[in-house]
Amino acid sequence: MAHRYFVDPLPPPGWQTLPRDTSHHLARVVRVRAGDEVVLFDGRGGEAVARVAAVNGAAVDAQVGPAEQVDAAAAVAVELAFALPKGTRAEWIFEHATEVGATALRPVRTARSGDRGARPRGDRWQRVVQAAAGQCGRAWLPEVFAPEQLAALLGRDDLPAERYVGCPGAPPLGAARTERALWRVGPPGGLTAGEQKAARDAGFEPRGLGPMTLRTETAVLAGAVLLLAGR
Amino acid sequence: MAHRYFVDPLPPPGWQTLPRDTSHHLARVVRVRAGDEVVLFDGRGGEAVARVAAVNGAAVDAQVGPAEQVDAAAAVAVELAFALPKGTRAEWIFEHATEVGATALRPVRTARSGDRGARPRGDRWQRVVQAAAGQCGRAWLPEVFAPEQLAALLGRDDLPAERYVGCPGAPPLGAARTERALWRVGPPGGLTAGEQKAARDAGFEPRGLGPMTLRTETAVLAGAVLLLAGR
Repeated sequence: MAHRYFVDPLPPPGWQTLPRDTSHHLARVVRVRAGDEVVLFDGRGGEAVARVAAVNGAAVDAQVGPAEQVDAAAAVAVELAFALPKGTRAEWIFEHATEVGATALRPVRTARSGDRGARPRGDRWQRVVQAAAGQCGRAWLPEVFAPEQLAALLGRDDLPAERYVGCPGAPPLGAARTERALWRVGPPGGLTAGEQKAARDAGFEPRGLGPMTLRTETAVLAGAVLLLAGR
Repeated sequence: MAHRYFVDPLPPPGWQTLPRDTSHHLARVVRVRAGDEVVLFDGRGGEAVARVAAVNGAAVDAQVGPAEQVDAAAAVAVELAFALPKGTRAEWIFEHATEVGATALRPVRTARSGDRGARPRGDRWQRVVQAAAGQCGRAWLPEVFAPEQLAALLGRDDLPAERYVGCPGAPPLGAARTERALWRVGPPGGLTAGEQKAARDAGFEPRGLGPMTLRTETAVLAGAVLLLAGR
């Protein structure tokens, strides 16, 4: 697979110096040569092939082809809502959920999630998602939401009708029944009884992931994999 | 859930100073107090409850209860064979595969996996697996194998009869059909055509994980989740 870079908006067709970050990575890390092809994608289904014409230090000139629109092609839109784990474990969610095909990533603050959600890292998460999409071949980026309180999430009127909340001992999560589903998990200590009730009252069905106590990032990813099984 | 510590063999019942690593973590990180209960497990199904009696600096004395044998209880034995990704991504496999319930972890060297597998880190991986088992409530540790060549793996006569090899575009991997299954993936560049053929000749059925190009650690974990789905 050609190297893929997130560039939004895509440059117009023709001879271009590629954007600085892209140029730098291509010149210094990938060490491209004239004639190599790379793919630029805008995260909204647009892709363009760029053929490297010249490498001047850290600047890469390329002949950019016309933009083509790639079908969204997500058989199931899987949204993931989760209490943020600490540090790199949070980034791991954004990276790997993008790979497996999640369409929305919603950090959620809960009673037991402490202040972890208080430091949103939107720019960093966007970069992680963009890099993961480039790596795995996605033309569409998942939507990254700002952290919000659980109550705010539960009150939204734009959530999928098919919605699940992780709950130890509940029936096992299976493949999505409809074209749009949401899976909510974390924090490590679980939701409070009141939060669990609020989620059920908001139409979230309790589902489990087996006998083990999974870390939040593992439960997020396992849920996405199961909802998308067979697609 | 009580804090759980890997201790093999389990100490005999009675008043004991807990092992140094366990004591240190309990005293300095968890900050236990007299009366707190922790669980010791030997990774082979044996567990004992220990009630903290005294904390002396970094040494913890406890009243250790009798060992009890916990059922293995793995409805499906899922073995995972994989080319080692770099650095912490390899450790992620050992950690998260333990959580989701894998029973064997087999690093494999392939033509395109470079020399990554040349630096086995058995002790480190064992510690990662022990910590993850403690965290997630497993009483049985997955077996961690030393890295071996793909040809050696394919020649083994003790592998599960149900065995799959990751292959882009192949039919989707589903839940295990039998009580013992093996899933093999990586390296990033994939197996060579010759290796793919050797795997098929050794009874490995090609299976895919959807349209995206997953990182090795994601493919390992997703495969384990799918094989264990519904169990």
